[in-house]
Amino acid sequence: MNIGFIGLGRMGRGMAANLVKAGHEVTVYNRTPGKTGDLEALGARVGISVAEVCQGGAVMTMLANDEAVESVVFGKDGILAGLPKGAIHISSSTISVALSDRLADSHASAGQRYVAATVLGRPDVAAKGELFVVAAGAEDAVRDAAPLLDVIGKKTTHFGDQPSRANLVKLSSNFLLASVFESLGEAIALVSKAGIDRSEFLEFLTTTLFDLPVYRNYGALIIEDAPAPVGFAAPLGFKDIRLAIAAGEALRVPMPLAGLLHDRFVELLANEGEDRDWSEIGKLARRDAGESVGAAEPARGDFVLV
Amino acid sequence: MNIGFIGLGRMGRGMAANLVKAGHEVTVYNRTPGKTGDLEALGARVGISVAEVCQGGAVMTMLANDEAVESVVFGKDGILAGLPKGAIHISSSTISVALSDRLADSHASAGQRYVAATVLGRPDVAAKGELFVVAAGAEDAVRDAAPLLDVIGKKTTHFGDQPSRANLVKLSSNFLLASVFESLGEAIALVSKAGIDRSEFLEFLTTTLFDLPVYRNYGALIIEDAPAPVGFAAPLGFKDIRLAIAAGEALRVPMPLAGLLHDRFVELLANEGEDRDWSEIGKLARRDAGESVGAAEPARGDFVLV
Amino acid sequence: MNIGFIGLGRMGRGMAANLVKAGHEVTVYNRTPGKTGDLEALGARVGISVAEVCQGGAVMTMLANDEAVESVVFGKDGILAGLPKGAIHISSSTISVALSDRLADSHASAGQRYVAATVLGRPDVAAKGELFVVAAGAEDAVRDAAPLLDVIGKKTTHFGDQPSRANLVKLSSNFLLASVFESLGEAIALVSKAGIDRSEFLEFLTTTLFDLPVYRNYGALIIEDAPAPVGFAAPLGFKDIRLAIAAGEALRVPMPLAGLLHDRFVELLANEGEDRDWSEIGKLARRDAGESVGAAEPARGDFVLV
Amino acid sequence: MNIGFIGLGRMGRGMAANLVKAGHEVTVYNRTPGKTGDLEALGARVGISVAEVCQGGAVMTMLANDEAVESVVFGKDGILAGLPKGAIHISSSTISVALSDRLADSHASAGQRYVAATVLGRPDVAAKGELFVVAAGAEDAVRDAAPLLDVIGKKTTHFGDQPSRANLVKLSSNFLLASVFESLGEAIALVSKAGIDRSEFLEFLTTTLFDLPVYRNYGALIIEDAPAPVGFAAPLGFKDIRLAIAAGEALRVPMPLAGLLHDRFVELLANEGEDRDWSEIGKLARRDAGESVGAAEPARGDFVLV
Repeated sequence: MNIGFIGLGRMGRGMAANLVKAGHEVTVYNRTPGKTGDLEALGARVGISVAEVCQGGAVMTMLANDEAVESVVFGKDGILAGLPKGAIHISSSTISVALSDRLADSHASAGQRYVAATVLGRPDVAAKGELFVVAAGAEDAVRDAAPLLDVIGKKTTHFGDQPSRANLVKLSSNFLLASVFESLGEAIALVSKAGIDRSEFLEFLTTTLFDLPVYRNYGALIIEDAPAPVGFAAPLGFKDIRLAIAAGEALRVPMPLAGLLHDRFVELLANEGEDRDWSEIGKLARRDAGESVGAAEPARGDFVLV
Repeated sequence: MNIGFIGLGRMGRGMAANLVKAGHEVTVYNRTPGKTGDLEALGARVGISVAEVCQGGAVMTMLANDEAVESVVFGKDGILAGLPKGAIHISSSTISVALSDRLADSHASAGQRYVAATVLGRPDVAAKGELFVVAAGAEDAVRDAAPLLDVIGKKTTHFGDQPSRANLVKLSSNFLLASVFESLGEAIALVSKAGIDRSEFLEFLTTTLFDLPVYRNYGALIIEDAPAPVGFAAPLGFKDIRLAIAAGEALRVPMPLAGLLHDRFVELLANEGEDRDWSEIGKLARRDAGESVGAAEPARGDFVLV
Repeated sequence: MNIGFIGLGRMGRGMAANLVKAGHEVTVYNRTPGKTGDLEALGARVGISVAEVCQGGAVMTMLANDEAVESVVFGKDGILAGLPKGAIHISSSTISVALSDRLADSHASAGQRYVAATVLGRPDVAAKGELFVVAAGAEDAVRDAAPLLDVIGKKTTHFGDQPSRANLVKLSSNFLLASVFESLGEAIALVSKAGIDRSEFLEFLTTTLFDLPVYRNYGALIIEDAPAPVGFAAPLGFKDIRLAIAAGEALRVPMPLAGLLHDRFVELLANEGEDRDWSEIGKLARRDAGESVGAAEPARGDFVLV
Repeated sequence: MNIGFIGLGRMGRGMAANLVKAGHEVTVYNRTPGKTGDLEALGARVGISVAEVCQGGAVMTMLANDEAVESVVFGKDGILAGLPKGAIHISSSTISVALSDRLADSHASAGQRYVAATVLGRPDVAAKGELFVVAAGAEDAVRDAAPLLDVIGKKTTHFGDQPSRANLVKLSSNFLLASVFESLGEAIALVSKAGIDRSEFLEFLTTTLFDLPVYRNYGALIIEDAPAPVGFAAPLGFKDIRLAIAAGEALRVPMPLAGLLHDRFVELLANEGEDRDWSEIGKLARRDAGESVGAAEPARGDFVLV
């Protein structure tokens, strides 16, 4: 299929590369230039405007937040203005339920189709095309988008025809991950102050009741004093918790654990700055308990998680 | 080995039965009579006093809480008075860190040995002898207790020579389980009020990032409106969270998520009574969000979990 | 002074009336027509557009939320477009710190002056001209606005030249009030379930350590089963807590009590709907404790508080 | 009246002195000797055992916690053993509801009378005989104790014939005070990080909506960086919050704000040690927000509060 791809951050690059390798004609675009070298080498065309990547049957977006998506969609010469009638906007960004609902309305009014296809997984998983995809939208649109989703992910789960449900499921998943950081963090702080070796405790947990990569891999970060390499930045994790809370506000669902995670992110950002992995909130229980953690700088470079 | 076993509740019965089947000479005792029929049929002797079961090389206790253990150990004609010098008290009950420390001191003063060997698993797992055992105590005592622990569990993890560490690890594990109920409960409330099918959401989670029996089995209880069968009673789960918080008080570890779970248990007991499974706290997010849950009576009968 | 006044809700009506009575030439405007009768009778002129009320030396706005203020200021033919250079926009609405900062920038760019003059007090206090006023802005602007502020309030406190500080102080004050509802609510639930008469308990508190109208008047609402008359609607109180949390996010200040209040408002709105006084969050502790509260409809009519 | 007085800490000394000055024949006793000099000078007799102070018509106790009271009452040669039938034990200590209920039962079984007469106020207020007294117990016992209560306090409020209600009311009052520390602390952290002068903010609050000594005096401590002089030690305040939570557990009342205060005390004790005033929890919001507070040692000497 002739498609466009907007958003070449750590996740988007891998997704776009897989689409190219799968034989699709992909025109890529990034607001900040200079990230397209590898993709060109693979055979991608590089567009110099949003409009230019909206000529095909679909455009996929993978951007950081609501503001970025709004800018690319609603801006002058944006997707809404440029995408042909009947073509599909596949939005993979982690955005608010409210914006997803607005995108659904706007694209419908413009005669375009819209699929929310959020993804679970870290950059290395995206590079391998093994993301978990959560898709929602009109049946025909999801069906027509399926060949593309099959390329970026190893499995697609459908949540009906209201696109924003895919966004809500994604936010809920990130909430559940952050909840693991907090619960592990408190348990680790407790046993650590009792003199138990943190790695032995984690080894015990992850070979008995919690034999799961999420607990094993994030636990391995949380038990360390030194900051983890930044796989998913704390400000983005914080944004997702805020969006989950905002969804809860609109749906009238009190989420006290989400509120606790919210405060943990504020505490982390206040004390350690922006440049931390989101799992660092799992060290704050030890910090509040008077142990010294997190002094050094985070390690650099890629790393594999979940 | 010639051993005693005190506490024939749902967990203790299975553990004692396995010890008998493994060829040990087991004298059993329960404060409330009438629970020994099956064990006698297997070949256990039935003692009519604590003193009577303290004649062998070891006595294992599996009781409901601190009060029960204190009564059996420190009471007139209790274990402390009756157990021979050098014999081992193996305590598997989920009790406080403080009581475990006190037991260690008391048994040492009496020339007896003491091993804390807490267990993870539900009654059906105990019946199969497949519990996860967490053991701590003096090296020789743990070594001598090992043949018994190997019978009741499929794996024993050691946490050094301070017995109360085994209790702290057990409390931390139950804290982590209850944390899963809360996080799942909030996420489920959120998607449920958005109209997403709860079982489809759970199926998605447990086939992607959270592919773990804990999430799958407890999630299956939490998504239901009707109360779950009581596998582990809410008052016992509440006790364990209180003990985790008490350990945090003593060690100076603030545990805000444990505090939230505490309040959930109080809310559950206030509104639904004592006779509920502890996982029912995972439905309170939906309740607070205005959905009606939990009206009916819990189902009866055994069931398999974790 | 020749001034405009926009926003004739329960608070604004009283403020505008006092300005008229004090001899100022006031042109009033409300987006929803039909609220100007009493003010005309007092001698106010009625404008039919925002532009029409921006002809004088100052325009005062008293609106429900950020959206209303944005619409009136930034909209086509809004205050920004219509207010003469050098004239003052006095904003009394409870809005976000971020919008107040944006207003400061925008008015400065347009050569206009801007004073944030938030107010504490309920409609009956506004009608008497006895509000507490919190003012911030450039010294000359605050000085020129002072005669108007002296009319609407009995006391003005200054917080320097950054207007948004007046907004932050207002949000903090409402946070403190809502905190009183929660703390009183939990204490009342505790003694109530112990069988202590709630009004005797409140009488005790407010004649000993908590001898303050805030505790006495709101306490009198919270101890009742029936919903209180709606003096300040729960959705508005909820908005203020959200704005306080948002300010905390931007300033990197974790506010766990604000987070708790947030969840209380969500619980209230989920279970009782929008049409409740904000102090009703103080009854949720009793609700969660299994007592039945809040079934009936709130009483109607004016009432006096704080 | 011929009475005994046990517990000559900072509060008890003042209370006993006032009883002596009022003309009662007072025999005092303290477990730790050497605190009786001033009282002897006033005319008090000094007893050398609990039994010795139990010879009169009443004995008043003012001790630090449950353990101290249990030791003095239930110990060999304790109050229960020594107090004549019909004489009154007046307990002013801040103890648990459960212990107070147990005291009521025990004294009744021994044919003695029991009044819980808890007190609100700091040592300087006790010295002036101006405490607020909260009394509960059998009508005749409270009536007979009244002349003594009138000496130690300026006002006595009655809460019926179940003594533990006086304890619950006392715990609720301390919960409300600590809630003020937290709410003030969060508001102060918020405005402080925005650059607002903390003392100007406090002055504003306490001259408008929160014109109350509790807010003014504790606020003045909380806005400072340096630790406050220790008027009421943090471990005692922590104990009272734990007792309030324990009462909530028994009565099935979820108290999330009490839970938050609990965690604040743990955080304070973990990071600053035992030797801090309980109001220091009000500085933790600033600490968590990354501001540096509390480094220095607390000032010494008496000070006046509430």
